[in-house]
Amino acid sequence: MPKILAVNAGSSSLKFKLFEMPNEEVLTKGVVERIGLDQSFFKIYVNGEEKKESCQITDFSIAVQLVLNKLTEYGIIRTLNDIDGIGHRVVHGGEIFSDSALITDGTLKKIEELSHLAPLHNPVNVLGIRAFQKVLPDVPAVAVFDTAFHQSMPEQSYLYSLPYDYYEKYGIRKYGFHGTSHKYVTERAAQLLERPLKHLRLISCHLGNGASIAAVEGGKSIDTSMGFTPLEGVAMGTRSGSIDPALIPYIMEKTGKTADEVINVLNKKSGLLGISGFSSDLRDIEDAAAKGNARAELALAVFADRIHKYIGSYAARMCGVDAIIFTAGIGENSDVVRERVLRGLEFMGVYWDPALNKVRGKEAFINYPHSPVKVLVIPTNEEVMIARDVMRIANL
Amino acid sequence: MPKILAVNAGSSSLKFKLFEMPNEEVLTKGVVERIGLDQSFFKIYVNGEEKKESCQITDFSIAVQLVLNKLTEYGIIRTLNDIDGIGHRVVHGGEIFSDSALITDGTLKKIEELSHLAPLHNPVNVLGIRAFQKVLPDVPAVAVFDTAFHQSMPEQSYLYSLPYDYYEKYGIRKYGFHGTSHKYVTERAAQLLERPLKHLRLISCHLGNGASIAAVEGGKSIDTSMGFTPLEGVAMGTRSGSIDPALIPYIMEKTGKTADEVINVLNKKSGLLGISGFSSDLRDIEDAAAKGNARAELALAVFADRIHKYIGSYAARMCGVDAIIFTAGIGENSDVVRERVLRGLEFMGVYWDPALNKVRGKEAFINYPHSPVKVLVIPTNEEVMIARDVMRIANL
Repeated sequence: MPKILAVNAGSSSLKFKLFEMPNEEVLTKGVVERIGLDQSFFKIYVNGEEKKESCQITDFSIAVQLVLNKLTEYGIIRTLNDIDGIGHRVVHGGEIFSDSALITDGTLKKIEELSHLAPLHNPVNVLGIRAFQKVLPDVPAVAVFDTAFHQSMPEQSYLYSLPYDYYEKYGIRKYGFHGTSHKYVTERAAQLLERPLKHLRLISCHLGNGASIAAVEGGKSIDTSMGFTPLEGVAMGTRSGSIDPALIPYIMEKTGKTADEVINVLNKKSGLLGISGFSSDLRDIEDAAAKGNARAELALAVFADRIHKYIGSYAARMCGVDAIIFTAGIGENSDVVRERVLRGLEFMGVYWDPALNKVRGKEAFINYPHSPVKVLVIPTNEEVMIARDVMRIANL
Repeated sequence: MPKILAVNAGSSSLKFKLFEMPNEEVLTKGVVERIGLDQSFFKIYVNGEEKKESCQITDFSIAVQLVLNKLTEYGIIRTLNDIDGIGHRVVHGGEIFSDSALITDGTLKKIEELSHLAPLHNPVNVLGIRAFQKVLPDVPAVAVFDTAFHQSMPEQSYLYSLPYDYYEKYGIRKYGFHGTSHKYVTERAAQLLERPLKHLRLISCHLGNGASIAAVEGGKSIDTSMGFTPLEGVAMGTRSGSIDPALIPYIMEKTGKTADEVINVLNKKSGLLGISGFSSDLRDIEDAAAKGNARAELALAVFADRIHKYIGSYAARMCGVDAIIFTAGIGENSDVVRERVLRGLEFMGVYWDPALNKVRGKEAFINYPHSPVKVLVIPTNEEVMIARDVMRIANL
C-alpha cells in the first residue's frame, strides 16, 4: 500500500507525517525545529513514543536528509524507495492554483512568482520542495495550497471595493487561507451529517492561534474572513483582524512607526495578547478571566463577539445555514469560546446543548437533537488532506 | 412658539433649516456654498420657492451674517430676536459627549480638543459655532454630535483588538457616526411599529454617499459599522469600507504613495467609484448595470453584499431582530439596493413584499403583513433631531 509523506515547511521548521494510504493510517510524525538557528532539534514518534534529539541543522537540505535517515533508522520504512509520494503544504497559490498541483519545474516557477503575495511563506515552501526533490527526484510530489479551496469564491466576495485596477495590476483581492482545513472539516461534516455535501450550507470556524471563518455552500467556499493576507477577519492570538484602515496612518503618527512596523504590531502584538496585555494563548486568557481578570474577560468577549457576528453574516450570505463546525486548537477544545460564540443564535435555528458542548478534541455533535442547525466539533486534519491530494493528483 | 435654527457647517458650506417648535414646522431652509472659494452662492427657500444668489463669501462670519440678513429680508423672521435657539451639528464628541450639550466656553474648548479625532470636521464646526455666537451672543446654542448616540456601545463592541494602551493613550476605539440619523429613524420606527422602543431590536441602515449600519437594542446603539473614522464598515460611494489592513503598506509599495495618500484613495477613489470606474452615484451605477455594464453590476453586487452581511451579523449581535430600517438617499430611494440587501433573509424571519418595496422617499412598511421581522423605509431627518435637542437641552 502506498506510503505518502505530508510535509509542512515553515520559516525555521519542517513538520512531517507519514501515511499509509488509502487507509490513512499514520505510520509516524515528527518535526525539525529551529532550522538555521542554534539549539535546533528533531522529534519523531516511534510506535507512539516520542524520540527527541538535539542536533545542528543549518539548512533545509540537512533537515530533509535527517528526516529521511531517521525514517529508515527507526525501521518505519525499509528504504527510501518505500516513499511513494510527497505532499507539500504551500501557503499561497494566488489565482493560478484552484486545486493541488503536481510539482514540475513549471509549478515551482509559478509558486516562486507568487512570492510577492506571501513573501514570508512561499520562498520557504519552495526551499522545502527543492530539498526533497534533490534526495528523491523520482518520487511524485504535489503542492497543496492554503488558498486553493477559496478560489471558488465569486467576485462579489473576493473583490475589495478599491480602484479596480488594483485588482488587475497588483492582484489585490481576498484570497483566504486555512483552505485545506476548511475543506477537510466540511467534507467530514457531510459524512457525519449523512447528507450530500452539495446540498449543505456550512459555516466552518477554524479557531487556532490564527483563526478564520468560511461560508461553504455545496462543498465550495463562497466567502471567508481572512483576506489578502491572514491578518484580516476575526481577532486572533496576536493578530488584530479587521480594523478601520484609517488607523494605520493615525498609529504611525502617534507612535512614530512606519507602516510596516504598524502592520507588525497588528500581526504580532494585537488580538488576545493586545487586549489582555499578558498572553496570546486562549487557555491563559480563560484561566485569568475565570479568576476575575477584567482585561482577560474583555479579550475573551471581543474574541467571541467577532466570531459570533461572522456566523450571522455568513448565514445571511448563504440564506441560512445547515451546520456550524468548530475546529483547530481553540475550536476543538474550548467549550468557553464555543458557548460564547453560539449563545443567542436561536433566532436562526441554532439550539446547542451545554452538556454536549463540554467535549474536547474529538468529533461530536453539540446541538440538541431537535436543532434545525447542527453544530459539530471536528478535529482538523490538514495532513490527511495533503496525503489524499497526493494520491489523487499523482494518480497513485 | 420657539423658532430654532439647525445648522450644519461643512468645510466650505453652511446649511441651515429653521423650525417652529414643538410642532416641528419647517419655516425655511437653505445653504451657503463655496465659502472662501470663488463662485460662492446662497440658496434659500421662501414659501417653497428656491431663491439663489451669487455673492462673495470669504469666511464663515460673512456667511452667518448673510443667512441672518436674508431671514429677515425675506420676512421669515421679523428680527433676530425671533430666533430662540440654535443647534449645531458637530462631527466628533469623542468619549466626552454621550448626549448633545449646551454651548459654553468649556464645551467649545472640549470640541476643539477633540479635533485630533476629526481634524477635517471639528475645527470647521467650531468656526460655525463662533460665527453665530458673535452675532447672537445671548441665544442659547446646543452642539449635537454625530458620535453621541453610539457612546452607549459596550466595550466588546467598541474596542479594537489592538494593544490596549492604544485605547488608553490615543483614544483608538470605534466611535461610530450618523448617530443623529440612526437615533431619529429608530425612534420613528418605534412609533410606526406602535411598540415601546425599549423592547425593540432594530437594525438601522443609513445608506447615503456615506453609509453605516447600526444595531439598536432598547433604543441604545450597541454596535455600528463605522469605526474610529467614517472609513470603516460597508462599501460606500467613494469609500472602501473595511479591507485587510495589511493592504496599506502593500499599496504604498506598489504605487509609491504615502500612507496618508493611500487612505485618501480609500476615502475618495474607492467604493462604487473604484469598482465601477465611472461614478460614485448609485443612480448611475444602477442605470449602467441595467444596461448590462459588468463593472457597474459588480459594484452593485459588492455594495449590497456587505450590507446584507452586516444585517446578518447584527441580528446575531442582538440574538434576533424585530425590524430593519432603510434611510438616507439610497436607503430611501433605491428599491434595487433594498431588494438585493433583503433577498435571502427569510431564514431569520424577513419576508418582504416586492410591490411595497417600490416605494421612494416616504415612510412605508415594505414587509408582508405576516413577516415576523418588519422592514421600514423612513426618510431621515437629522435637522429635526437637532431642533428637538435644542428644545430639550436649552429647556425651551
